[in-house]
Amino acid sequence: MRLSEGVEWGLHCAVLLAVMPPDTALPTSRLAEFHGVPVAYLAKHLQAMSRAGIRVAGTGPRGGYRLARVPADVSVLEVVEAVDGEDPAFQCLEIRRRGPTAVTAREYRTMCGIHRVMVDADAVWRERLARTSVADLAQGVARDASPKAMEKFGTWLQEVTS
Amino acid sequence: MRLSEGVEWGLHCAVLLAVMPPDTALPTSRLAEFHGVPVAYLAKHLQAMSRAGIRVAGTGPRGGYRLARVPADVSVLEVVEAVDGEDPAFQCLEIRRRGPTAVTAREYRTMCGIHRVMVDADAVWRERLARTSVADLAQGVARDASPKAMEKFGTWLQEVTS
Repeated sequence: MRLSEGVEWGLHCAVLLAVMPPDTALPTSRLAEFHGVPVAYLAKHLQAMSRAGIRVAGTGPRGGYRLARVPADVSVLEVVEAVDGEDPAFQCLEIRRRGPTAVTAREYRTMCGIHRVMVDADAVWRERLARTSVADLAQGVARDASPKAMEKFGTWLQEVTS
Repeated sequence: MRLSEGVEWGLHCAVLLAVMPPDTALPTSRLAEFHGVPVAYLAKHLQAMSRAGIRVAGTGPRGGYRLARVPADVSVLEVVEAVDGEDPAFQCLEIRRRGPTAVTAREYRTMCGIHRVMVDADAVWRERLARTSVADLAQGVARDASPKAMEKFGTWLQEVTS
């Protein structure tokens, strides 16, 4: 079971957009540069985030994108599902209905117990990701970053916005 | 993100082994027949379960395998990890260390906040799966199965053990 690497990219991009000065939009090329990832591949994931209503085109002559909502209203789960899809990790193929004990469909009155525990685990996973917002992540990044990194961020921000 | 279909197969096989009469071992061919899945592909997953200490070779002239422990001591998580591996779904590639704000390695004093929330979510997912045993699953299957399915199971069991 593996999440797409685009999940990491998408979350980092969401955090960066969250900490930009108000009304500052960033083009995909800047987001790719900041994270050291290939533009074309990142663009695919960012488009998925736009389709999911997480990111919108900014206004003004520079173009670029910004978060569609305040960061506190964008959950980690939304970004994960936008980039990686909403399908549960476990796909029940109902193999209990095969083989020598197979009975007619209407005799399977309840969800297979194996499916049920996997659905429960999927729900707690998503619930945990839904509880954290991009604003929470951004606060954490700002708190954890070294003074040197913050200084470099300031320099980059000036270059991008000037 | 997708779990291998072998997870469903492995869990169903564990449940079937759990409800077999004491000292009854089942060969891979019987497990495949019961679940309507290809023997060779199932064998790969069952071997992973044997390596993980979930399943052991039975004794007696018929050969086959049985659970290595009482079903209450085998968790769903153990089967999932045996078949699908123990790697977390999210792989942090530390992209925060790239680009214009990169600083020296020792200045990253804490785990990336994005990584941390994914690690937390992974932990609650595994915790949920660890809380359910193969015995729990087996009880649920027995409770939910229709009388007709139980009757067919009885007939199959007689054929297998006679």
